[in-house]
Amino acid sequence: MKESRNRAGYEIISENASFGGRQLRCRHTSTALRCDMHFSVYLPPLAQAGASDGIRLPVVYWFSGLTCTDQNFVQKAGAQRVAAELGLILVAPDTSPRGDQVPDDNEGLWDLGKGAGFYVNATRDPWKSHYRMYDYVVDELPCLIHSAFPVDADAQSVCGHSMGGHGALTIALKNPDTYRSVSAFAPISAPSQCTWGQKAFRNYLGEDKSLWREHDAAALVTECRPWLPLLIDQGDADEFLQEQLKPELLLEACRKAGYPVTYNLRAGYDHSYFFIATFIEDHLRFHHSFLMPEANQ
Amino acid sequence: MKESRNRAGYEIISENASFGGRQLRCRHTSTALRCDMHFSVYLPPLAQAGASDGIRLPVVYWFSGLTCTDQNFVQKAGAQRVAAELGLILVAPDTSPRGDQVPDDNEGLWDLGKGAGFYVNATRDPWKSHYRMYDYVVDELPCLIHSAFPVDADAQSVCGHSMGGHGALTIALKNPDTYRSVSAFAPISAPSQCTWGQKAFRNYLGEDKSLWREHDAAALVTECRPWLPLLIDQGDADEFLQEQLKPELLLEACRKAGYPVTYNLRAGYDHSYFFIATFIEDHLRFHHSFLMPEANQ
Repeated sequence: MKESRNRAGYEIISENASFGGRQLRCRHTSTALRCDMHFSVYLPPLAQAGASDGIRLPVVYWFSGLTCTDQNFVQKAGAQRVAAELGLILVAPDTSPRGDQVPDDNEGLWDLGKGAGFYVNATRDPWKSHYRMYDYVVDELPCLIHSAFPVDADAQSVCGHSMGGHGALTIALKNPDTYRSVSAFAPISAPSQCTWGQKAFRNYLGEDKSLWREHDAAALVTECRPWLPLLIDQGDADEFLQEQLKPELLLEACRKAGYPVTYNLRAGYDHSYFFIATFIEDHLRFHHSFLMPEANQ
Repeated sequence: MKESRNRAGYEIISENASFGGRQLRCRHTSTALRCDMHFSVYLPPLAQAGASDGIRLPVVYWFSGLTCTDQNFVQKAGAQRVAAELGLILVAPDTSPRGDQVPDDNEGLWDLGKGAGFYVNATRDPWKSHYRMYDYVVDELPCLIHSAFPVDADAQSVCGHSMGGHGALTIALKNPDTYRSVSAFAPISAPSQCTWGQKAFRNYLGEDKSLWREHDAAALVTECRPWLPLLIDQGDADEFLQEQLKPELLLEACRKAGYPVTYNLRAGYDHSYFFIATFIEDHLRFHHSFLMPEANQ
């Protein structure tokens, strides 16, 4: 651990005032991933105002998609405005382990390796030594966040986009007692049945399809209880809709399992952050209604 | 002109749905700059809804700062949300001529040459053959915009950041009948008196200080009439405040000239787009109040 790091083991590498609060970018050494990692945290004005009163605020985790870092959401989604109003802390991790010592896709493609951790713990070489994003975002990072920021550990929700939508859905479905609600923009809804997911699972997990089921939202909804409030937005002009995202498979699985889901198909919207920016307010208000139900009565 | 270009001489190279409207990125060949240029246009929902009725909407031009293209504002400011609500068209040009044939700073620095056009017409070699950003943003681009989009040519305002704040201020002050209002985030307020401005003016305009005055907001306010509504936001944690931006020189010139200005010094804010995103709503509502006064009564 570097000397400049504080007691919780992270250092703030940039800080910007934003909507009355503070947008932080931090660096730490991850035990799960065995490398240095960046993550970003937005602290709303209430986090500062309430610091002396010991107020702890609800937190929404954001999981990004293929090729992204922690920065895409921070710079493009415009979420800070809404989080400032609602008093939500936002946490955005990176999408894979990083650094020269971390194995990457030999072919230089963007759907495997760095930027494409798929939120699983890899079990196969060469990936298993670093690619443990599931443990990182479920356990290690929240533990650090709780120790370092005024977060109410009993009030967590999770949200994500594309590969990160897959991450949000599967992690919430596997840990329904850890989160109050889950939402996704254009998630990879049935990764066992699309080429992005199959490539990732084959490399990270091997050929045993029972392991794939553990990280496939369309499979997990059939057995996950208790139900979590679940919101999905999908653009109908999304270039990946038919080949990779396949929301119809998740919706059909939800229907069969009786799992309640709110699904908004948005006319004209594509896979970009312009889509996310348009509807992020809806998602944060959705989460807020479960994170602070007393404020929404 | 390429065949794929339409009658107005531009082609749409990307289009994204955003807040019910459309975010376009376009390319055309500029006569003033003698090169291909990109610009971005946001069309609010009203532009589409009103197309069949011949409705024409007010327009706000955004001028960006050093190193930026037309994309920084589009991706990071979150302005589309407010423009959608208010029914404003937003236009963001690039910050300099572009292309391999365009001269650049020999030392590879970012405060001269490409990305640093300073919104003037260069009079000296090697710059004068391409660096005519003043003509481009005052005449050529608005002419194209008026022919291509449902813009009310009598309802224009202008806004910018840093070097683009300088551009917005000087261009509005020199053309007070062309714009309804002007605003700036952290503008270079007195370029003749800071190193960024002096370097640009010396290279583009030469040593004749009377030419510099024509592009210096703190000089122009002393003679510009009629007054334009003028709003400036400045962060007090801005790393360029003292050495480059020098708002105190503009404020003092306004005071001496009796030129009314609203100046907001924002505690804790820096020079980044997080600052712009926080206050862009204020600026667009300010412009809207002069662009559509009947809607604000």
